[in-house]
Amino acid sequence: MSAMPMERQELGDDEVTARAGLAARVRELAEAAVLTGAGAAEAAAVADEIEALTARLAVERRGAPPYVASSEGIMERHTANPVNGTLNPFAPPVDLEVTPDGAVRAEFTLSPLFEGPPSYVHGGVSAMVLDQALGMAAAVSGTPGMTATLELRYRRPTPLGVPLVVEARFSRVEGRKVHASGSITGPDGRVTVEATAMFIMPERFITSQY
Amino acid sequence: MSAMPMERQELGDDEVTARAGLAARVRELAEAAVLTGAGAAEAAAVADEIEALTARLAVERRGAPPYVASSEGIMERHTANPVNGTLNPFAPPVDLEVTPDGAVRAEFTLSPLFEGPPSYVHGGVSAMVLDQALGMAAAVSGTPGMTATLELRYRRPTPLGVPLVVEARFSRVEGRKVHASGSITGPDGRVTVEATAMFIMPERFITSQY
Repeated sequence: MSAMPMERQELGDDEVTARAGLAARVRELAEAAVLTGAGAAEAAAVADEIEALTARLAVERRGAPPYVASSEGIMERHTANPVNGTLNPFAPPVDLEVTPDGAVRAEFTLSPLFEGPPSYVHGGVSAMVLDQALGMAAAVSGTPGMTATLELRYRRPTPLGVPLVVEARFSRVEGRKVHASGSITGPDGRVTVEATAMFIMPERFITSQY
Repeated sequence: MSAMPMERQELGDDEVTARAGLAARVRELAEAAVLTGAGAAEAAAVADEIEALTARLAVERRGAPPYVASSEGIMERHTANPVNGTLNPFAPPVDLEVTPDGAVRAEFTLSPLFEGPPSYVHGGVSAMVLDQALGMAAAVSGTPGMTATLELRYRRPTPLGVPLVVEARFSRVEGRKVHASGSITGPDGRVTVEATAMFIMPERFITSQY
């Protein structure tokens, strides 16, 4: 069903460091491009320079994002994912970690690139962050899966530019189904968005990729 | 509650064209950075060049994304939003349009930057796209609002690299509340993700920003 070839580059530790640095620089460039007050001529001139760098990176181009060779588990290896992937300039990123008691947690701050309503986080971006956090919490259960249902309740606006906390944990496993819940909390300690989700492990993942 | 200042640059048409070009070039660079097969030394060298361009754009830096001066309505003016904003390199983008019968629709293709499970769209990215589409459908009712609830049902995996269709429409308005629903459909015509949502117009938006 997908047109994307599945060959994967496996990155060694030195390459991961360099590629994470590259992604971080592109992320900063993206933010500067949105927030710049530069006029049309300067914006066009910088755009030309960027095009040349793109061509340089594209000399050798793969069909799919790389995996980290030294990590185990698909979610840990896929550090180019669009939410917490350090190799992906699109990712805010949200540095999700598993806590000793089995929860998934990150402190993160969203830049103006992620604005929906004036000065607040786009509702879809909150949804994206929660999907990843709850998905990782589901994986902690030992039954990683794909999102089957995701329900979000927006209690109040989520502010940009200030430290937020996302937390999630799995509640129960039923065969290949895992239920999880979580939330985003603002700097005042009040929950801004709550989420519940159900993930299903595809049968083909059990013996292959997961 | 937010640390982000609210002053906005208002872009004229020439500036919009130049800045949209700049965002498109950054988007291509981001994709090249994820898919490059370049080694650590070349990645680091390109990263240095990018840093210099970021500094150039940051000579004049605003505290918030710009608005388009010639457009009316907050959603139309905010073309730096992270889903369908042509000025935002983070946005895929998804070119959402209002159809003559009041639906919101876009054909779009997602690059490998948006990968979750191997070769499929990240569930959170589908959620982000649907939130924006349903939010615009709610605005079509004349009562634009912020997401209050969003419920997603993932029927099957959504493939990367092939043409997808997102469609949404509002179903009913109850005072400041608007209900909307929509879906993403794959190239085989089958729905991959369904969504329903409720949006609430904040009281302060009624007379000010919306």
